[in-house]
Amino acid sequence: MTVASLLDRRSRLMGPNVSTFYDEPVHLVKGEGVWVWAADGRKYLDCYNNVPHVGHCHPAVVDAICRQAATLNTHTRYLHEGILDYIERLTATFGDPLSTAILTCTGSEANDIALRMGEAVTGRRGVIATDHTYHGNTTAVSQLSRTNPPTGGYGSHVRHVPAPDSYRPLGGEAGAAHAQAFADEVAKAIAELEKTEHGFSALIICPFFANEGFPDLPKGWLEPTANAVCGAGGVIIADEVQPGFGRIGTHMWGHQRIGLTPDIVTLGKPMANGHPVGGVVSSPDIMTAFRKSFRYFNTFGGNPVSCAAADAVLEVLRQEDLMENAKTVGDYARQGLHQLSEQHQVIGDVRGSGLFFGAELVRDRQSREPATDYANRVANEMRRRGILLNKLGIHYNTLKIRPPLPFTRANADLMLSTLDEVLTDLPVDQ
Amino acid sequence: MTVASLLDRRSRLMGPNVSTFYDEPVHLVKGEGVWVWAADGRKYLDCYNNVPHVGHCHPAVVDAICRQAATLNTHTRYLHEGILDYIERLTATFGDPLSTAILTCTGSEANDIALRMGEAVTGRRGVIATDHTYHGNTTAVSQLSRTNPPTGGYGSHVRHVPAPDSYRPLGGEAGAAHAQAFADEVAKAIAELEKTEHGFSALIICPFFANEGFPDLPKGWLEPTANAVCGAGGVIIADEVQPGFGRIGTHMWGHQRIGLTPDIVTLGKPMANGHPVGGVVSSPDIMTAFRKSFRYFNTFGGNPVSCAAADAVLEVLRQEDLMENAKTVGDYARQGLHQLSEQHQVIGDVRGSGLFFGAELVRDRQSREPATDYANRVANEMRRRGILLNKLGIHYNTLKIRPPLPFTRANADLMLSTLDEVLTDLPVDQ
Repeated sequence: MTVASLLDRRSRLMGPNVSTFYDEPVHLVKGEGVWVWAADGRKYLDCYNNVPHVGHCHPAVVDAICRQAATLNTHTRYLHEGILDYIERLTATFGDPLSTAILTCTGSEANDIALRMGEAVTGRRGVIATDHTYHGNTTAVSQLSRTNPPTGGYGSHVRHVPAPDSYRPLGGEAGAAHAQAFADEVAKAIAELEKTEHGFSALIICPFFANEGFPDLPKGWLEPTANAVCGAGGVIIADEVQPGFGRIGTHMWGHQRIGLTPDIVTLGKPMANGHPVGGVVSSPDIMTAFRKSFRYFNTFGGNPVSCAAADAVLEVLRQEDLMENAKTVGDYARQGLHQLSEQHQVIGDVRGSGLFFGAELVRDRQSREPATDYANRVANEMRRRGILLNKLGIHYNTLKIRPPLPFTRANADLMLSTLDEVLTDLPVDQ
Repeated sequence: MTVASLLDRRSRLMGPNVSTFYDEPVHLVKGEGVWVWAADGRKYLDCYNNVPHVGHCHPAVVDAICRQAATLNTHTRYLHEGILDYIERLTATFGDPLSTAILTCTGSEANDIALRMGEAVTGRRGVIATDHTYHGNTTAVSQLSRTNPPTGGYGSHVRHVPAPDSYRPLGGEAGAAHAQAFADEVAKAIAELEKTEHGFSALIICPFFANEGFPDLPKGWLEPTANAVCGAGGVIIADEVQPGFGRIGTHMWGHQRIGLTPDIVTLGKPMANGHPVGGVVSSPDIMTAFRKSFRYFNTFGGNPVSCAAADAVLEVLRQEDLMENAKTVGDYARQGLHQLSEQHQVIGDVRGSGLFFGAELVRDRQSREPATDYANRVANEMRRRGILLNKLGIHYNTLKIRPPLPFTRANADLMLSTLDEVLTDLPVDQ
């Protein structure tokens, strides 16, 4: 079946405007480790997908799913040890007092709960997010999104603050001044919300600011912001859907890397290597406030198969030391990008941590004018040459490289040499 | 591990108020067909679970999950035939023009989308639901729930109408008068919403009124209601999470049985036999309106493994002729309940269709006073004697019998003889 006829069937069966990646969408049929195969037999190096976190079709995860699916799959109104064992292992990776969890099926459901946890514990409803974020697709959560703005406009309980940008820092200065400038914006939004009927409930952020282009922020950078939130009696929700589960190499969680102590943490995509699992981790106090204020039950959330899949991911991470691999291979790849930047003026900045990294492309290093169209052309040309990656960031000019964690130095070399060729072959001004 | 220590671990790891079934919760470890096994080796006949729709751990579904999980699991931004083949087969079971679908991970996500589809197509926001319903757990959808009322009260865009009750019909009369009385309540709620800034967007109902106690309503019963909704330019959302996929025996879908043509249909629990899959089916026009008004992407929704699992369910339903089985065994079991009602005055009414049925228990057949506590004691005593069922309905006095579809006459006989014993052994006045 041709790509054109698949696209026809898609729009007939799924409706218009259903997004695909790349000018020529890829028709995938097989995956293994860091590799995927298209229907025409072509093999691609996957430098993009964080959902198959421990590698496409990891046999230990597949085996856990098969064994449990053949044994029992029910819901949490029956007792089952799977969910208890998993939550125990999961929360052991967090600092005190983050020792309780609700399991959901998606990160969107997790953030939808997190907002209600904020309401339960503060009695207020106003939420602050950055102006270049995405936290999910439910009606309530899509209210926060600036990358997919809601039809009918934002609710009066939502405020957005300028996303941090280490390459073009707020107020023109990096470091402590930048951190304070961000905190000041948050404090301003808090004051605004406090003047409304909603009051201020929560700040929700990705502690790695992934959609914002993963700015290079030092440990402690969010301290002034956390003080502002705490001083106003609000809570901090750390959306770890993207940086979590060891991807950033230095730490299991994005908030640990930046030195933030969140009240609520939300989890999603990589949690069970593609099996639909998300979750919310919080303290016993916040969990109790939520459980007392809202009755919540999720039929598929925390079912035995989902827990087996999620538990297998934690086990593979440990056994294969994938967080350490993310660190060493990520450092190596970033070094490679720095080397490429010596020959390619278009690389304005190299950023990231572990196996979540990339390069911001600019038309001019002095003016730092974003090379947005060029980044799009580069992503498409990389795809044509067998390397899957993409772009994101405030100006959508940052190459987003976020492969499955078993990514090797050899994989990084292939990605880097292909990028070198593409940057050489594609002139910026065209 | 004892039940007490599991409950301790649950409240420590999952928080308080996490509901379980039965006074003595069941600790399940294995399932097969219509049977489940507890950790102590005891075997239970499952007369309750609709999620393992084609039977616990059906080998064809398990096999489909294993094969696809070992081959590829990605998302819909790559092309994959699995989702297209599945949507084609799924929508073939609906009448025109319901030919397009969005796949989600839960029925809650499906209803959350359906409400936005209503907004997209009407430009309005007011929603009407019955006053004894539950449609899911997201912030937006839990606004509709009367069984789990939202903290902070209902939004001003929500109206509730009295749930239909064939045993105690609205206005005191069954049949056409009852149908008109319900339609009048809906028309009143529409008029109220039209006076607000929200206007009237959608009526959302389970077309089998499952949580309401599955009243016995004849084909065409919803016609006056549909006319009221249509006349006001609103849409009808049929939540098929409970009656769908052939469970009711006579038809694949609850709306087909009652002769309703909904604009939007939502799907969940039984869709993939426990694998987290939900969906929204609609017409190309409504889908286009939604896709143009809202950007929607769901990372796990419609992934190849979820589609393989869902497709296997459709295939097993067809191969094993399970809808027909639901009809014949359901008819047989209801006949058995009618026979029991001759000896047990507490059985006030026997209702249902296919393998979704039960008996309403009353303290007195004249006054029809609900035997709510008694129904609870019966469900718990049945569990003690190895039969899992539960109770629901407006007065929570209706036994809810909703087994996996491969339920046999022998299974029904065991359930009925045990119920006979329990009703004999448990006096109503105690």
